[in-house]
Formats: sequence, structure tokens, C-alpha cells
Amino acid sequence: MKSIIISIGDELLIGQVVNTNASWLANELNAIGISVLRIMTIGDSKEEIVKSLQLSETEADIILITGGLGPTKDDITKRTLTEYFDTHLVINKEVLKQIEALFALRGWGKAVTEINRKQAEVPANCLAINNPCGTAPAMWFEKNDKVYISLPGVPFEMEAIMEKEILPMLSKRISGNFICQKTILTQGVGESFLSEIISDWEDQLPAMLSLAYLPQPGMVRLRLTAKGSDETALKSLLEAELRKLQQIIPQYIWGYDHDTLEAVVGKLLLQKHATLATAESCTGGYVSHLITSVAGSSAYFMGGVISYDNRVKLAQLKVSPETLLKYGAVSKETVEEMAKGVQQLMKTDYAIAVSGIAGPDGGTVNKPIGTIWIAIATPNNIVSKCFLHGEHRGRNIRKAALSALNMLREELIC
Amino acid sequence: MKSIIISIGDELLIGQVVNTNASWLANELNAIGISVLRIMTIGDSKEEIVKSLQLSETEADIILITGGLGPTKDDITKRTLTEYFDTHLVINKEVLKQIEALFALRGWGKAVTEINRKQAEVPANCLAINNPCGTAPAMWFEKNDKVYISLPGVPFEMEAIMEKEILPMLSKRISGNFICQKTILTQGVGESFLSEIISDWEDQLPAMLSLAYLPQPGMVRLRLTAKGSDETALKSLLEAELRKLQQIIPQYIWGYDHDTLEAVVGKLLLQKHATLATAESCTGGYVSHLITSVAGSSAYFMGGVISYDNRVKLAQLKVSPETLLKYGAVSKETVEEMAKGVQQLMKTDYAIAVSGIAGPDGGTVNKPIGTIWIAIATPNNIVSKCFLHGEHRGRNIRKAALSALNMLREELIC
Repeated sequence: MKSIIISIGDELLIGQVVNTNASWLANELNAIGISVLRIMTIGDSKEEIVKSLQLSETEADIILITGGLGPTKDDITKRTLTEYFDTHLVINKEVLKQIEALFALRGWGKAVTEINRKQAEVPANCLAINNPCGTAPAMWFEKNDKVYISLPGVPFEMEAIMEKEILPMLSKRISGNFICQKTILTQGVGESFLSEIISDWEDQLPAMLSLAYLPQPGMVRLRLTAKGSDETALKSLLEAELRKLQQIIPQYIWGYDHDTLEAVVGKLLLQKHATLATAESCTGGYVSHLITSVAGSSAYFMGGVISYDNRVKLAQLKVSPETLLKYGAVSKETVEEMAKGVQQLMKTDYAIAVSGIAGPDGGTVNKPIGTIWIAIATPNNIVSKCFLHGEHRGRNIRKAALSALNMLREELIC
Repeated sequence: MKSIIISIGDELLIGQVVNTNASWLANELNAIGISVLRIMTIGDSKEEIVKSLQLSETEADIILITGGLGPTKDDITKRTLTEYFDTHLVINKEVLKQIEALFALRGWGKAVTEINRKQAEVPANCLAINNPCGTAPAMWFEKNDKVYISLPGVPFEMEAIMEKEILPMLSKRISGNFICQKTILTQGVGESFLSEIISDWEDQLPAMLSLAYLPQPGMVRLRLTAKGSDETALKSLLEAELRKLQQIIPQYIWGYDHDTLEAVVGKLLLQKHATLATAESCTGGYVSHLITSVAGSSAYFMGGVISYDNRVKLAQLKVSPETLLKYGAVSKETVEEMAKGVQQLMKTDYAIAVSGIAGPDGGTVNKPIGTIWIAIATPNNIVSKCFLHGEHRGRNIRKAALSALNMLREELIC
């Protein structure tokens, strides 16, 4: 089964909105065995929509269309599909009821407006699928054995409809072809060197398996893909090759697939019944944000101090004035005192401390932009390390936070 | 001038990487007057690359290709382009020098590897353009008055080459057609209601202007686009319509184009020579992260306390045990004491405090998931407000942080 995704919206072509919908859809479709042949991103233009549909229906079995279903005048997808399938609009009572219920639930305090009532009109030949989070329903069309699915462009509405309705419906249509994938998450090694270390293993991979390198700031991900008709055979082939790889680079692998370092660390803390606090300078709260983005993190995360100003390092974290004066804020000595300080202040088992120069200003000859000191305080020890990242503020913050979480992970598993 | 972007990479079609490159390129191209007709996202497949090139060269003047230039075996863009233009690979000495310099600079501690030396091979008919951040050069081809530009897929490498080399080169080729755009950033009003409020204004817009609604969690953006040949006339037309809109919805507009609330707030604090601290519970550091993502924020941001556990609210923020017991952690009383507490602790002029239930657990009948209390302490006052957001943890954190920054903004301008 092959699919093509058509993402509609002028905002995508002028770069004001990143097309996260297409990635989300691609990921979910692959997971149920539907490969994505192409993603076409086009504007709110009737001509472009028709051209993309015509091109796609010659190549794909399933065409997913997102966007252009809003209540405002620039949204033309529904009108265009109605013409394309040579049909007319009818009021769908179920959808109208859902829109009324949504207005009542959200307490928007007003009756359903005329513009929102129009959202309940759908092409006569489609199956309308309720949108639990918004006013635009999804629409399922079938023609010449092809399926066309039109979805709203607001990400969480689209995701909710896909998860609750469309993916189960698509799963039923599938037969035969499977894709198994495993993504191996590594840290501490660059793409080129990693590629040399695993070159022999890569060369001996069976033809049904392929490998891709997906570098990101702070990590390299390796994606292993197996394609074929026998799901069980594919899975064991994948597992066997994965086990070989784990033998070659155990020190670099920290997780798989959608694992995040913050969730991996959270799980380890839960297992140990251990608690954590943070003391952040250059990362400015980003380490804590990652940690608390994990649901249930209140079970192990007590809190943190963002000591952006040196006075906060002195007063709240009890870094000694002599240390700050002698070694500076970005130093092994200061970052270790920060970690110990917050560990004692919040009475936790573990603490993370980060102090560095994120840029674009503040660098010196001895401590250039990108210099980051990280310390991890454990129940009976303290470890610290210096990293030299690049010149980009946002990437330095992200890399520093990932390095800090990885250092904590290493302490938790040893 | 019309362009088409071709994004190459299997990782994009299985949804493991979001195509931020295409949005970035689209934004930059529009800014210099090149509109983007379509974005085609395809796999690392020779057939798909050739098909996309053939389709695109009939419609666009400029074709930008990203991805597939890495040193590893799955990257086939360069090979495919060499065949497509019926040419052969030659070593480019400039590029090789650049790769050697990069190895020396980064202190990777090893000689240039064979696999990286191959990165200096480029098709004989192209102009190779140095990549200041990586080993894959960009390549500029011309054929039948069309321009083809192949760029590496690593975002910061692609962006650096575009900014330093390609955009200036493209600017030189442009003549005549202009696009002016202005995006108006609003908060505190939903898309449908906003659309009704400004409906009359929208209807009277001249034909050269078009309006689009771009909703996001926590805000609605309005994009006004003017297209035509006379840049000066377009700009004054746009300005005139913008002024009308500012009269209709002054209370909802907080910024324009690429403004961020954190930068707007930062600028206001700088103007007032005022300082800021944060006390975060449910947002877990995200408000502070936004504030410190702005370069130069250390001039006004002293720091913060993340009081995830109630003991931190008591011990560090001096919230009274009676308040916590009587009203709970998510209450007007507690959040106001948190704001005052951190304001005094860090001796700042302003303070933000947030306490709420981000979900997915922790909701009650009286305080459902999505209940967020926010307080802003000013030099001589304190204001607080309760918000009821949805059920999604990540969105609740994001919306709470934006609401907090917007409340601070309102205090700073009044």
C-alpha cells in the first residue's frame, strides 16, 4: 500500500508554519504498513489542488490531504473537493450536533455562529468523520479503488481524528506488505566516525534491510528498515542485526525509536526511588523543561534554581564568593558547587548543574562561546565535564541539556 | 520568479525528521521576492529525484534541492545530479581545502578520512560553493535559463550557505516582481470570533491584498500579502490596511512577523531598566527557557525557582503553609505568594509565577486538567488570572507560558 500526502496551505509555502503534520502522518502510516511515496506541499489554490490529486491518484492507493478546512474565506479545500468529485454540499446533522456540543463544552458563551454552522456542510459522496477537538470534520472519499482522506490542518485536531478513527479504518484495508523499523539513538560520536566503526556490519546487511543516518544537534540516530511480506521473519531479521550492532557500539547507544533522554532518565530515577534537582545557568530552565515535559515527573523532580545572575549562585546555591572570583562562573569548581548547593537545598539524591557561555556574546580567548561545564551530584560522589560546542545559542542550549541528561543517565546505570 | 523546493531524504517520508528546511527556505525566498510554488518531499531514490526535477523544471525558474549529500552510502543526490546533467565528478581543490580546514578547526584529532575526501568531488558542470559548517558543498547548476541549487540537508549547514552565498546570488538575478507580507500576531481571541470582528475590513481589502488566518496553540496570526510590480506602492497599500486593522483590534495585537513574546517582553524590560524573576510550578522551567532563549536576556533576567514540589514552594518561595493547606497549590492565593516570594528572594522589579495542572493526571472536579493560575508581581502591585486550557500536557505548558508572558507585557506597557 502506497500513500501520498498533500499538505495544503499558503502559510506552508511562505515558511511561516513548519509542516509537522506531514511528518506525524508519515510516521503513523509507516507504523501500520503504509509507505509514503511523496509529500506534496501546495498553496490554497484550486489549480494546484486538482493537479496534485491527478498526479497522486496515478501512483498511490491512499491520498491524505491536510489543511484548508477552516471556517474562513481563504480555505478552499472542501469547495475544490466537491467540484473534483462532481458533487454538492449537504448539511451533516451528526457533525452539526458535534459542533454545537463543542461550543457548549468549551463555554465559548455564544451560540454557534453562521460561519461555524457552515462547517457542518460536507460533499454528498463522502463519509464525514467527527472532529472531537474542532469544527472541521474529516472526510473519507472512495473512487476507483482509491481512498482520499481530507483532514483539518490544525495539528492536534488532525492527530485526534487520525488516532481515533482513520488509522483503525486504514488498518482494516491493509494486507500483505510490512515495514519494520528500528531507530537506534546514539550520543558521543559524529556521523562520519560512527559510519567507519560500523562499516563492516553495514556491508553485510541482508538485502531486505537498509540503514540510514539521521544526525541531529547533539545526537546521531541510525534507522534500520526491513521491508517484505513475512512480518515475523522481518522482525527476527531486524532483531538479529540489532543485537550485532549493540555488540559493536554499546557505549554510544542510549535508547531506541521515540525514546527521549528525559524519559529514559525519568524511568531510571523511578526505578531507584531517587529524586532530582537542577541548578541551571546558561541553559536557563531548558534542562528542567525537558525533565518536566515527561508526564509523572513530579514523582522524582523536586525543582530547581535558575541562577542566571551570579548573585543567585551566591545567595541561593551557596557557591562561595572565592570560587566565583578565582575560577569564574564557567568552571569546574563553580558548577560542582552549584550541583552540591541545589542538592542540599532541595534535599535530593541527584542534582544536575550547568554553567556555560551560550553566546552570541560573552566568549573569551580561554573560554570561547560554546564552552559548557556540567556537573552531576550523586548520593556519594560528584562528576563534572567540560564540552566545547559551537557558536549558535539555541543549539548550544539544546546540546548542553542533552549532554547533562546523558551524564546523569551514565551515573544512574553505573 | 517562481521556485520549487525538492526535499530529499527517506527520514522525511517515515516521519522521523520534520522538514524544517523547506519552511526556512520558503521564508527566505519569499523575503527576496521569489515565491514558492510547491514543496516536494521525496525519498533517497534516483527515480523520484529525476521525476521531481523533470516536473519542476517545466514550472519553476529556480529549483532548490536539499538533502542526500552526506558522506554515507544512503546519500545519492550528487550521483543522481551528475547523471541527470550527463557529466562526471571532479575533485574541487577549494572544497578539499575547506574540508581539511574544518577537520583542523574542530580538532577532530584525525586526518581527513577517505569518506570525507570524497565530499570534495563535485559534478564538472556545477559551481561548487563552500560549506563553512560541514563537509558537503552546495552546488549551483544552470541549464536552459533555469537554476538548480543542491544544498546539504543538515539545517544549520544549509542555512549558513544560503545566508552567506546563495541568497545574495539569487537576489542579483531577480527583477520586477515583489511580494510584501506582514504577519500580525494576536492573543486572547479565537479564529472564528476574530474573523467576525474583522469581516468588514477583510471584505473591503483591495484585490492586490489577501488575508490568511494562521492559528497556533495560544495565538492566532493574521498574514496580509500584497503582490505586484511596484514595490513602493505595495508597501504603502499594506501599511494603510494595517493601520485600519490596528484601529479595529488594538487590544489583541502584541507583535508582528517574527516577533516572539519573549523578545517583546525583553525589549520592554530593557527600556524600563527593570529586572525579572520567575517562580514556576506546572510550566517546569519553560517560561524561563523562553525568556533566556533571547540573546542578551542576562541584562534583565536574574533567575528563577522551579517549585515543582510543594516543599520548594514553602522553603524557597516562602509560601505560607496555611495558604497551601486552605487553597491548594493551584490557587490565586498560592500563585500570588509565589510571585511575591521570588520577587523578594531575587530582589527584582517584576516576577512571574505559574501554578496549574498540566495533565494528564492531577485534575479534580473543581480544578480540572488545564486549570492554570498566573500571577505577575510589579514594583507596586500584583495581578493574577485563571485560565482553563485543554487536556494536552505539552500544549497546556506552552499556552500557560505564552499567557504569562502576555500578562507581563500588559503590565509593562500600562
